[in-house]
Amino acid sequence: MTLARLNNLTASLQTSNLDAVILNPGPTLTYLTGVQFHLMERPVILFVAPGQDPVLVLPELEMLKVEMFPYKVQAFAYGENPSEWDAAFRKASQALGLDGKRIGVEPRQLRLLDFGHVKAGAPESEYPDASEVLTGLRLKKDKAEVDAMRRAVKIAQDALEATIPLIKIGMTERELSSELVIQLLKHGSDPELPFSPIVSGGPNSANPHASPTERKLQVGDLLVIDWGAAYDSYISDLTRTFAVGEVDDEYKKIHKIVQESNAAGRAAGKPRVPCANVDKAARDVIEQSGYGKYFTHRTGHGIGMEGHEDPYMRGDNMQLLEPGMAYTVEPGIYLPNRNGVRIEDNVIITEDGADVLSDMPREIRVVG
Amino acid sequence: MTLARLNNLTASLQTSNLDAVILNPGPTLTYLTGVQFHLMERPVILFVAPGQDPVLVLPELEMLKVEMFPYKVQAFAYGENPSEWDAAFRKASQALGLDGKRIGVEPRQLRLLDFGHVKAGAPESEYPDASEVLTGLRLKKDKAEVDAMRRAVKIAQDALEATIPLIKIGMTERELSSELVIQLLKHGSDPELPFSPIVSGGPNSANPHASPTERKLQVGDLLVIDWGAAYDSYISDLTRTFAVGEVDDEYKKIHKIVQESNAAGRAAGKPRVPCANVDKAARDVIEQSGYGKYFTHRTGHGIGMEGHEDPYMRGDNMQLLEPGMAYTVEPGIYLPNRNGVRIEDNVIITEDGADVLSDMPREIRVVG
Repeated sequence: MTLARLNNLTASLQTSNLDAVILNPGPTLTYLTGVQFHLMERPVILFVAPGQDPVLVLPELEMLKVEMFPYKVQAFAYGENPSEWDAAFRKASQALGLDGKRIGVEPRQLRLLDFGHVKAGAPESEYPDASEVLTGLRLKKDKAEVDAMRRAVKIAQDALEATIPLIKIGMTERELSSELVIQLLKHGSDPELPFSPIVSGGPNSANPHASPTERKLQVGDLLVIDWGAAYDSYISDLTRTFAVGEVDDEYKKIHKIVQESNAAGRAAGKPRVPCANVDKAARDVIEQSGYGKYFTHRTGHGIGMEGHEDPYMRGDNMQLLEPGMAYTVEPGIYLPNRNGVRIEDNVIITEDGADVLSDMPREIRVVG
Repeated sequence: MTLARLNNLTASLQTSNLDAVILNPGPTLTYLTGVQFHLMERPVILFVAPGQDPVLVLPELEMLKVEMFPYKVQAFAYGENPSEWDAAFRKASQALGLDGKRIGVEPRQLRLLDFGHVKAGAPESEYPDASEVLTGLRLKKDKAEVDAMRRAVKIAQDALEATIPLIKIGMTERELSSELVIQLLKHGSDPELPFSPIVSGGPNSANPHASPTERKLQVGDLLVIDWGAAYDSYISDLTRTFAVGEVDDEYKKIHKIVQESNAAGRAAGKPRVPCANVDKAARDVIEQSGYGKYFTHRTGHGIGMEGHEDPYMRGDNMQLLEPGMAYTVEPGIYLPNRNGVRIEDNVIITEDGADVLSDMPREIRVVG
């Protein structure tokens, strides 16, 4: 499977204006090799150039990982002294004849640290942005990928259902977040979660990217839980919003609006429709309700091995949806310093429409 | 506290040849602000220039985080359309008068994505490596930091002790890893763990950076567990090696050698001694035993908010230890395709010696 993926990459390199691409630890590297490396102070770089075996630069202490590669790679290992690292990178680019050539990079993933060493090894090269070629590789999910995502959704939903009865008034956001993580692992998530759950109550729920705090759940709070599981490196990313005891009527109202917006966003996804339409469908509902200025983010993002990847459901994105594309639909209304609501589902485009992987009830539920 | 840290940074900038530094989400940004941002496709950058309020560029949807800053910052927010982002970065560098100046970067943390936007906003600037200034900030831990690390060690040790009775022959590495994560959270680790535990048995234990697999524990395996907790953003990073049932005499022998090497490494740490001495003390024991070529990595790394930070315990590192420096001592012997041993502790340099934060038994223990 990974060999077919590598062949796809080299085929698209041949029709691009790139002579090679370089990858550091992250989802694209894992996608192409099946091997896990960690991003750390010791750089790891895979060079891929059409017609040649890929070349890997890595620390000596990780040499055993070379045997885990599903195809032949030429490895250049370096020792612990950083002053010797550039030499390994020089050998790598020489082995592929890359100095002076066009070596594509992945700007969202590559650090200046990695780039500095690669450049020291091939100082005459150009380093154009290869995001388009690389993004294209992972954009359409095959059956095995969709099955893994489906499993990641099921694990996440089962874990939250198991957590809900444990929610109590006076519990802190952090306590609830820890309990949810425990349930995610018990229900079979990969030990490396895709992200740390967002558990935010009351005023914190009005911050879409809150980190769990020591604040205690109080009657009258809205409670936003944004969580996901990983299965076989594929992830889920869901959100539900709860009422802690009895809440203000306005909060029930905005919850209902977001629920309708989420339904409209889910319904808008089908092949050959621009991503912008999904955003518009969800946004129109909120704008027509008069809360438009409190929906402060795009409607969704692509999902697969990463929490945020192409395609993005943004008003300016005219990219057309195609079967196999996977993304979130996650409208929200955030009333600053008061309360917020978000409802998020995971969707896959099929041949004739869209398949919503998540089916946990979206109605407001009372907890605590 | 964070204001004092910011003042330290601006003071060291004034004696450096830098006009400013830029920080993206990561430990240095958290250290200086106390605010958590996630590294994602939307860049977040803090500009720090002496004599001026710091400037923050961030997505609009994160604007509420600006109120969480412990000092005044000037914020430039951008919307969801990436084509508008460079304009926010231009305003930020104009506000500080930075174009054409020397703006220091953190190459281990900054991505080409972040750097590209900063550069678009200040194209005439130079971007030297500011690692030395930034590393210096976090190098010596104060009492509150040491207390948090001590707590992170205690949580980790208690969690592993609670996990050991659950280890069974036939359990997979992944199952054991999940159980350990559950115990870490139950014992009070921050929900965001510093790293996913390494749980590697038999041949996998000979790979220092293994990821947990579906391999089942078997009698005769060595079992390496490398794990840590986080408390208040400060971490622990420990390793112990176990015997699954009865193991070969050679494995008991290498375990004993590594235990002696770890003790020698711990004993070598004190103020005004080069880091290289710690490495040499640990390495000499293994080399004299004839297993030198199987100790394939440095003896340790600094520890604090990150798993790997300065100072590094490497043979070529002549940096002198000073009170408040914190690091790991983690020698190992790895017999390729057979078994491996590592024993890792966390150490803080004091006024007159070193304080070892971890005290879990280091002797080989039989599990399963």
